[in-house]
Order: sequence, then structure tokens, then C-alpha cells
Amino acid sequence: MTEEFSQQFASYVQGVHWNQTSSQELETAKLAILDFLGTALAGIGEGPDHALWDRISQTSGHEASIIGKPQKTTSWLAALMNGTLGHSLDYDDTAEFGHASVIIVPALLASGERFGCSGSRMLEGYVSAYEVGFALSSVTRRGNDQHHGMHSTGIFGPITSATAAGKIMGLTTDELRRAWGVAVSQSAGVTGNFGTHTKPLHAGLASQSGVLAAELASSGFTSNTSALDAPLGFMYSVVAPSYYDEIDFDNAIKELGENHTSTTLGFKKYPCGYIAQGAIETAIKLREQTGLNVDDIESLQVRVPILEDYFQVDPTGDVAGKFSYKFTVACALVDGKVTKWTFSDESFSRKELTPLLQRFSVEKDPDSGSLGVLVARVGGKEYSLPIEPAPGHIRNPMSPEELQNKFLFNAEPVLDNLRSHEIVERVMSLEAEESLTSLMDLLSLRK
Amino acid sequence: MTEEFSQQFASYVQGVHWNQTSSQELETAKLAILDFLGTALAGIGEGPDHALWDRISQTSGHEASIIGKPQKTTSWLAALMNGTLGHSLDYDDTAEFGHASVIIVPALLASGERFGCSGSRMLEGYVSAYEVGFALSSVTRRGNDQHHGMHSTGIFGPITSATAAGKIMGLTTDELRRAWGVAVSQSAGVTGNFGTHTKPLHAGLASQSGVLAAELASSGFTSNTSALDAPLGFMYSVVAPSYYDEIDFDNAIKELGENHTSTTLGFKKYPCGYIAQGAIETAIKLREQTGLNVDDIESLQVRVPILEDYFQVDPTGDVAGKFSYKFTVACALVDGKVTKWTFSDESFSRKELTPLLQRFSVEKDPDSGSLGVLVARVGGKEYSLPIEPAPGHIRNPMSPEELQNKFLFNAEPVLDNLRSHEIVERVMSLEAEESLTSLMDLLSLRK
Repeated sequence: MTEEFSQQFASYVQGVHWNQTSSQELETAKLAILDFLGTALAGIGEGPDHALWDRISQTSGHEASIIGKPQKTTSWLAALMNGTLGHSLDYDDTAEFGHASVIIVPALLASGERFGCSGSRMLEGYVSAYEVGFALSSVTRRGNDQHHGMHSTGIFGPITSATAAGKIMGLTTDELRRAWGVAVSQSAGVTGNFGTHTKPLHAGLASQSGVLAAELASSGFTSNTSALDAPLGFMYSVVAPSYYDEIDFDNAIKELGENHTSTTLGFKKYPCGYIAQGAIETAIKLREQTGLNVDDIESLQVRVPILEDYFQVDPTGDVAGKFSYKFTVACALVDGKVTKWTFSDESFSRKELTPLLQRFSVEKDPDSGSLGVLVARVGGKEYSLPIEPAPGHIRNPMSPEELQNKFLFNAEPVLDNLRSHEIVERVMSLEAEESLTSLMDLLSLRK
Repeated sequence: MTEEFSQQFASYVQGVHWNQTSSQELETAKLAILDFLGTALAGIGEGPDHALWDRISQTSGHEASIIGKPQKTTSWLAALMNGTLGHSLDYDDTAEFGHASVIIVPALLASGERFGCSGSRMLEGYVSAYEVGFALSSVTRRGNDQHHGMHSTGIFGPITSATAAGKIMGLTTDELRRAWGVAVSQSAGVTGNFGTHTKPLHAGLASQSGVLAAELASSGFTSNTSALDAPLGFMYSVVAPSYYDEIDFDNAIKELGENHTSTTLGFKKYPCGYIAQGAIETAIKLREQTGLNVDDIESLQVRVPILEDYFQVDPTGDVAGKFSYKFTVACALVDGKVTKWTFSDESFSRKELTPLLQRFSVEKDPDSGSLGVLVARVGGKEYSLPIEPAPGHIRNPMSPEELQNKFLFNAEPVLDNLRSHEIVERVMSLEAEESLTSLMDLLSLRK
């Protein structure tokens, strides 16, 4: 490398300009921001939101807005709250480096509002943060779908969020490097917390960490400016202790700016873990195609090529069901859909689910195809459907209209129809917004 | 195990009572709290404090005090600020699980003040938190003096701090387990940040994390209640991915409550990294014994049995010098002492240091004795002094009077003499305090 790795990374971020960004990238960024806002609105009143708001509402501040609440707070707390809200239902988008928008958008909103940024700067922040997260994750080996048991969202999150906040704040390359140094010391999040309120908190904490890192760096706070690739830095300590020597930093540089937002970001149709989305879609198809009566099912099987430890949790009601193949697919067969209600206590305690869950097994089978297969035995007859990419998967993208409708659906219990439509319109032409003020007024119900 | 590991741990914490705690434990806890307060006062106005206070002062709150500032804030921010302050000079105590008091006392102060706790409850919080940190760290393998490159203070800190806050708040065993679950998802901190402002931030973030975890848990926030030992939890993901199967959890239980505060906590005589303390003391002895002229030194060597990567940093002024054997020992030889001033820009830019540093080498030598040896060549004559445990080391403890004098010295630039002596008196009879209010008024300069 002719120039230090972190320096090249920082120069890339500084150079991102919305006028030189492809329209496809900008459109995906807008849809991602809109989708985040919808999932955050839908997260209001859920468990993680409740306890966190209980504490945050004790603090006052005048810097940034919380989605759905008229009261403003500080930039850090707004990022913490909005990040957690957006991931409360596990309904938000997903990327190689974890859940992308819940660790990018809260930082954009908090720093953007605090520093009076324009919509076009927001888009630059989104794209550059996405590229940084993608580049870093793409050169590290991934075991058990995560990095030695830690949650990608939590470990790539602070860097990604710091990039977003740093771009918004116009940090110099040196400041950006210091922000990353502060950020890596906040990379955290164990996967053992999947299925609990603490998983959405990973997104909130990562969002907060990045904003804090960027703000401290801009005040002269010091850190290891080579922490991304230094021997005792991020890659070595947090991501890949045993594979450090294999990491191809040159490739990470090459990965930057190749329009990854539009080519790799996946959206979700169902409010639960990403991996089961295809199986749910297939279960609904099976139900529709065969008109089968759930009570007649003799046995049910999901066979998948990769079965993560954290996706084998037994459903225990509330959010835990979101990470259970059994629970999500069984509900899809019984109800023909999977919604927020699917994970309510009422849904979980239904007696009709029990016999179906008892006849249901989930197995790891390397020969089950790229995404696996759903097998049902009914009246001696066997139905076997390959699991296909669910809508929103990068191989089966959702259209802009579908994503806008998802937002309208999510916003409906909180915002009136007029306001929801105005938000869609404003976000979809974000580059025309001179400042975030009026958008945040709408989202926080102040107007 | 007859009962779940986390349950036994939580039951232990719940059972700690100051009346059943040895007087030696209580006295060490009081001295540790006092020493923390002094190092925090001495940290006021240093780099990390500056940038952080710049942001925190924007927020208002009425829950807890910041040392040296009249303005109150929220419990989380008070813990963040006080933890960072206490570690800003690297002058605070040290234990197997990292820097102990900077991750215990800020939580005790913040939660204790918020919930109107007594001094005896504070002591119970200190002892139980220390035992939990010690027990968890004692059963994990330690590589490169840290855990796969991560800073012990940052990774054991959130759990330890959550224990302190949880004990203060009187959490049930179930709540305590949930607090630990939230805490483990915040374990973080790369050693690559040693020698920068971000190292003290590790202590502040850990302190904040624990308070946040305990408070969320008490509001019903969920997490993995077995996260301490669960397959995708703390030990597996954060501490020891490759050694998980070797961890002796039964032994961790046995380690609890064996008076480890008084038998394992080390204090510091010099405001810099722990490892160099003995070498500094030895350098001062060499200077005194031989009356050597620094300019006459032909060569200087520190040979030590273990040489950590992060202790080989080149001095670059400011806090980085604190982690350099060369810089600290050279200053000890030139000045006959190592103080806060040693790490100032003025000290660092002294021309007389340069030739000495050039003749100085630090080498790893397994045969150099338990703590190593200091070798100086002057006028053809070789002086070789074994490095001995510095005052404050557990094998060469500082007396209560020495520690109280250290506090008075540290407090002097901030507090008047009367106030300083009153604080010593109150902390040394902490079990007599019915609430923290008036102690915090003194410490925050409100009275």
C-alpha cells in the first residue's frame, strides 16, 4: 500500500459527493431511509422501546428528535433511541456487515438535525457509511454466520455509524480516523442475546457509539488513528483474532465505492429474523397451492444447508419467536401471513399451534439446495417445496412501490395518512431538502 | 452444577451484607473508593475530560453528580464522565479483571446518589462487584496480558459495573441476570487504543454500560439470562473464543466471596501504566544509590520477562508516554520522580531526554527474574538492579496513610484543604453515612 489503509479509507469518505453518485445508489439509499423510518414507527410501544424511553425521557436536550416523540434530546440519546426503535421488530433491512440502516440512519438523523444538514449530505452519508461497512466486512472471514459469536451489527456498527456522523459533520481525514479509533473501542454485542430486547439495543448502542465517536474526534479526542488495521485494533481484536494475517486490506480499498448499496442491501417482507424469510414465503405458497388443512399435517420439516445456533432457539413468546424457524413457519401455515401480531403473547399462546409445532422438525442438510427445502406430509402424501428467496432478498428485490407501501402500513398506527404520504414524498426527493428540520418535525409529531 | 451458574452468581451478590464482610475487605474498599476519587479529581482538565465534558455539559439531568462539577446530570452520563475522569491519568488501581475502581465506583456513585443509598450499601456494592469481576477473570485464559487483544477493563467492566449498580438498586436475582445479559453486549475496548484518550474512555463506557444495564433490567428489559456462560454469550464470544471448553465455571463459583479485594487489589504510586511502576521505582533507587549523572550513562536497558505489545509504544508526548517503559524510566532517572507533569508537553519536549532515550533499549528476557532487571552502563561500570514490586503492588502494599496522602495530594488543585480532609474522614467511615448526598455535594463543589 502506498498510503496508510485508514488514510485511504478516510480519503474515500471525504470524496463522496452526491452529484457523482449513481442514481440507483441514491434511490436505494432513499428507500432504505424510508424503510428504516417505517420500521422505527412500527417499533413504538414494543418492549425495548418502553424500558429505554422510560430512562431517556428523564433527560432533556435540544439537539435531535426521536421518531414518534415530540420531545427533543441530545444527539447521542436520539441515536440510541432511534437505532433501538428501528430494530425492535427485526423488520429492518440487512447487509453483509449486519443490519445496515439501523446503524446508519439514526446517526444521519441525529447529526444531520444537530448540524442543520441538507438532504443531499444525508445521502452522501448513507452511501459512504454503507461502503465502509461493506468493505470492512467483505474482507473478514465469517464463522457461524457471525464473527466468533459476536453480532455483526454491533461490531461493524460503531464504525459505520461514525462514518455517517463524520460525513455529515464534514470531518477531516485525520478526524475521521480518530473517530474510527474511538468507534472500534465500542464494537460489541453477543449473539446469545438474539431473541431478547438486547438485540435491538445492539443497533441503538452502535448508532450512539458512532455519533459519540465522531463528536469526540471533532473536539480533539485522541485514539489510535490506525485502529482499523493496527495489530491490536479492530480486525485483530474484535473481528477475526485467528484470521488476522489472512485479511486482504488491499481488497477492502478496492471494494469502496462500487455501488454496493443498490447491489447488496436486502429488505424484509416479514417482521422477524432474515434467515427464515424465504421459508415463511414458501410455507404461505404451500398453503395457497394445496389448500391444506393444518390439522391434517402429519409431519413438517424444514431442511436447510446452514443452520445457525442462534436460529435454533425454542420459541418462548415475544421476540424470541422471531428467531425460530419452527414458530415463524408454523404461524405462516396457520395464518397465511406473518405480522407484528404473530409475535404477540396472544398469538404465542394459541392452542392450535402446539400440535403443529410438535410435528415440526428443523434439520441441517447440506444437500437441501441453496436455501433449503420445506417438506410436509399430509394424508400419506408428501409435498416438497424448495425455499426461494423471499421478496426483498437481493435476488428477488421489492419494488419502490412495495417498499413505500410497507412504510405506509408501518406508519399507519402512529401518523395520519397525510403526514405519512408527505414523508414518503420528501424522503424520495431527499436531495431537494435544504435541512432536516421539517422532516423531523413531521416524524416526531411536532407538526 | 446443581443450580445454573448465573443463578448461583446472582444469589451470591444478593447475599453480600456488610455486617458479614471482613473489616479488612471493608477498609480496602474504602481506600479504593478514596483513591478513585483522588485520581478522578486529578483527571480534571486533562484531554479526555475536556472533550467529553464539552458534550455532557450540553445535557441536563438531576440524578447524579460529576466529580468536580456543580451541575448534575443523568446516572448514565455521570457514570461515563466519572469513569473516564478516574482513568484519565492511568493513576488508578488495578486488578486481575482490569482497572477495578474506575468500573465499580462510578456506578456506585451514580446509582447510589440516584436511589439515596447508604454508605454501607456502597461498600456491599464494591465488594460484590469486585468478587464478580475477579471470579470471572480468574477462570479465563489470558493471552498477551489481555483477552485476544481486548482491554480487560472494557470487557469485564460492564458486568462488574452492572453488579455494583444492581446491588445498590437491590435487584432480584432474575433482574441481576438480565442486567448481566445486557452488560455483556457492551463489553468492548481494543488495546490498540492504549496511550490515547480512548483508553480512559473504556472505563467510562464500561461504567455507563453497567448502570444502563441494571436500570434497563429493573424496568423489565430482557436479555439472555445465562449470557455469562451460554454458548453464544460472554465467555464464548468476548473473552475466550478458542478456550471456551476449558473454562472452569465451578471454580468461578468457588472464587466468590474469598476477600479478594483486600488480597488482590493493587494501587499505583505513579500516574502511568501499571507494568512500569516497579522499573520506575528501581530507576529512582539507582539514581539515589549511585548519584549518577544522567549525561554519563553510556547505555541503559530494561530487561523484563514479559513485554506486552502495547507497552512497546514509542513515546509521542501526552498520554502515550504513560505506556512506554523508555519514557517513564528515563524521566525517573532525569527527574528522580514521575508525576502528572512528566506526561505534559513541556516535559516531553525537553532536549535532555533525547540522548538518554537513544541509549535506552527495552528487551524481553525470560531469565530476567520475576519482574525483570534494570541495567545501566556508566563510565565502563555496569549497575544491575532487579526490578522490585513498586509501592502499591500487592506484594508491597501502600499503607492507609500513604493512600490518604495520595488522595490529599490529588485533591489539592481542586478542593480546599478542609473539604479534602472531610472527604477522607467520611469515606474512611463510609458505613456511617446514611446517604451519599452530602459527600457528593462536597465532591461536586456544590457545598
